[in-house]
Amino acid sequence: MKLMGDIVCKFGGSSVAEARQIRKIESIIRSDPHRRYIVVSAPGKRNPDDEKITDLLYTCQSLAAEGKSYERPFEAVSSRYLQIDRQLEARSEIQSRLEELREQLAAGASADLAASRGEYLCARLLAAYLKATFVDAAEIIQLKGNDTVAESSYRYMAGKLKDPGLYVIPGFYGSDSRGEVRTFSRGGSDITGALVAKAVHARVYENWTDVSGLLKADPRIVRDPRPMAEVTYREIRELSYMGAKVLHEEAILPVYEQKIPILIRNTDRPEDPGTVILAERNSQVHPIAGVAGRIGLGLLYLEKFLLRKDPQHRDRVLGILASHSVDLEWERSGIDSLLLLVPAKQLEEKREPLRRAIEEELNPDHLEILENMALIAVVGEGLSTRPDITATALQRLSQQDIHVRLVDQGSSKISALFVVHSEDFNRAVTTIHDTID
Amino acid sequence: MKLMGDIVCKFGGSSVAEARQIRKIESIIRSDPHRRYIVVSAPGKRNPDDEKITDLLYTCQSLAAEGKSYERPFEAVSSRYLQIDRQLEARSEIQSRLEELREQLAAGASADLAASRGEYLCARLLAAYLKATFVDAAEIIQLKGNDTVAESSYRYMAGKLKDPGLYVIPGFYGSDSRGEVRTFSRGGSDITGALVAKAVHARVYENWTDVSGLLKADPRIVRDPRPMAEVTYREIRELSYMGAKVLHEEAILPVYEQKIPILIRNTDRPEDPGTVILAERNSQVHPIAGVAGRIGLGLLYLEKFLLRKDPQHRDRVLGILASHSVDLEWERSGIDSLLLLVPAKQLEEKREPLRRAIEEELNPDHLEILENMALIAVVGEGLSTRPDITATALQRLSQQDIHVRLVDQGSSKISALFVVHSEDFNRAVTTIHDTID
Repeated sequence: MKLMGDIVCKFGGSSVAEARQIRKIESIIRSDPHRRYIVVSAPGKRNPDDEKITDLLYTCQSLAAEGKSYERPFEAVSSRYLQIDRQLEARSEIQSRLEELREQLAAGASADLAASRGEYLCARLLAAYLKATFVDAAEIIQLKGNDTVAESSYRYMAGKLKDPGLYVIPGFYGSDSRGEVRTFSRGGSDITGALVAKAVHARVYENWTDVSGLLKADPRIVRDPRPMAEVTYREIRELSYMGAKVLHEEAILPVYEQKIPILIRNTDRPEDPGTVILAERNSQVHPIAGVAGRIGLGLLYLEKFLLRKDPQHRDRVLGILASHSVDLEWERSGIDSLLLLVPAKQLEEKREPLRRAIEEELNPDHLEILENMALIAVVGEGLSTRPDITATALQRLSQQDIHVRLVDQGSSKISALFVVHSEDFNRAVTTIHDTID
Repeated sequence: MKLMGDIVCKFGGSSVAEARQIRKIESIIRSDPHRRYIVVSAPGKRNPDDEKITDLLYTCQSLAAEGKSYERPFEAVSSRYLQIDRQLEARSEIQSRLEELREQLAAGASADLAASRGEYLCARLLAAYLKATFVDAAEIIQLKGNDTVAESSYRYMAGKLKDPGLYVIPGFYGSDSRGEVRTFSRGGSDITGALVAKAVHARVYENWTDVSGLLKADPRIVRDPRPMAEVTYREIRELSYMGAKVLHEEAILPVYEQKIPILIRNTDRPEDPGTVILAERNSQVHPIAGVAGRIGLGLLYLEKFLLRKDPQHRDRVLGILASHSVDLEWERSGIDSLLLLVPAKQLEEKREPLRRAIEEELNPDHLEILENMALIAVVGEGLSTRPDITATALQRLSQQDIHVRLVDQGSSKISALFVVHSEDFNRAVTTIHDTID
């Protein structure tokens, strides 16, 4: 297959935030001729007080829809692009494209169309600067009603991207069956990059960001968490499910299917190795990929002598939850007990009705309803061959007087779960991070 | 309530196996005037090569039903009772009662009736010896179609047992709605004792056996397991569910409902304190009651990227199990995985069809079907406040190179579960026993 061996590069908002960042992109692209497919986000913040282009565009659209003046935000958008174009000497006809956008807004552009112009203009600008072929995402990515990508998209992409040379494609959007622009509700430009990578059978999908790869824990919780060198798709999925801010799973699925590795790299430090996400890894040296978790869980625990002899008990409890509009997130049954994790928010004001309903229906010996619980997962391909890791984590948590309400290892081969009280969450994550290599 | 404060004593087969054992019963009964209700089993083995009366009676009945001579087993039964009666000088009219039994067998006695005569004759003999009132279990215990005890039994018992003095009641049987004798299918005389204890509102239910109480592990697996001083009903239930040979739960339920303590004591060593089973205990000193487990489990583990996004996946897998007549014993879900424990026996010859069905229906990324797994439970009221116990157990198992396939603590507040390979079962139970106090 002639496209084999190419690299898809997705550049995030910070990588296209200003001209000097785009010069870094140029240098990255020029350093490897296999980097032929570039997917871009809209320009992000240049400093913490800056505004994101996408946010400004949403503001323009909603002001326009209310018949109000959107001059100020539009001016902020225009000046960013004009400045970048001027500084790069890109000659991307940006002025006329901005005029076109102003007309679209005046004509009642949808929020999706308005927001998508951040990526569109950025890709136009970059294509002109790099002298690459621009391909509009609206022409190659088709979204179905439920916001999933139609299989036909791969045919369109393969067709439009088949010639040699460099391509620039805007991320974040596609078009629906009526040809209207539609943005992705989750995952943004990362998804576009993954779709292109799958379509062109890329050798690797490079995801260029402002960090030198993924970390083994959330840096807002753990001080200086260690970086991940390698991580598998399924480890990413479990970490992500547990609350880690990594690639959205919809941005992984297309490349997962073809086992295309994803490389998370730093545009500002292209010399850093970054993190590679792949199908399999050697877990001898680093058995654990990372630790993640989230607070905001409610816990229901009920116990009744000979509960297990009543084969309907589970259905009866789940029926009560459903009738109170409480979703079940997690479930564990003991011999004569049942432990359920639910969204804590949904328990608000339902705690007492729920308690009464369970007491009436099941008459348990013991019933606990707790609203401030947290779930933590230690995720690693090496976990199943290293049971001492969970043992050590448990020991350290115990030494820190952190009460572990539930421990589970083995329900998934690659993760161990701990349920703790929310107030112990940060300490528990830090303690666990410090026990893993 | 005038009956309050009395003690129900159940004596097992070894305690009534011969005259010198029955003299020990006499001394136990006479040493406390509150011991007013005696429930007896049939005479058990006097030595390892001896025959149990109940087994001999079943043999008589089945020979009689086939029209064959049952003289030899009947003679063995007769001589045991005659010898005991003679040695005790009980004058229990045993000869005429044996004749009556011979006639019943000849007239086509049911297996239940025949088997029940072991307890019946023993109770008759003991009542004569102790000059106590004999009450036939057939008159006070009514069994419903599904082998459960009718509530009316408590009325009959209360009526028949209301006067002062000493009573002897045969265990193991009652009568059905047509007045026919019916033996208990499980739990035997222990159930009778529990029913009487509940009926007379006993202060304590003493269960006299040939051991000085319960042990923290199975002595066939662990060398010199430590004894249990106290254990709660729910601890017993969990140990029993996990395979510990303790009182059958149906022998616990009646006294559990009234929080009557059960005392397991040794007829041969009445000075030993034994084990008390009760509603609550102080778990500070001995957080763990014991460790139990069983082999013979099959394990199914399946994993699929984004499995959890398919809300029907669990039902689909359980549907496949059901259509292959495989029962689900235990279930644990991970993020994108499902682990199921089933009876290993049921997997025989179904392993491949099951694998094919799961692969066709769910197309998992990974599917494991293992036939030689074991489940171990560490049970203790103190477990929830001592997470270090599970950590230590896990650490020691790991040091012993015992691969722990699943760990669960917290699904029940009083137990931690470990799944290991059958070949590691004995070592694992021993290792865990040695880590608990």
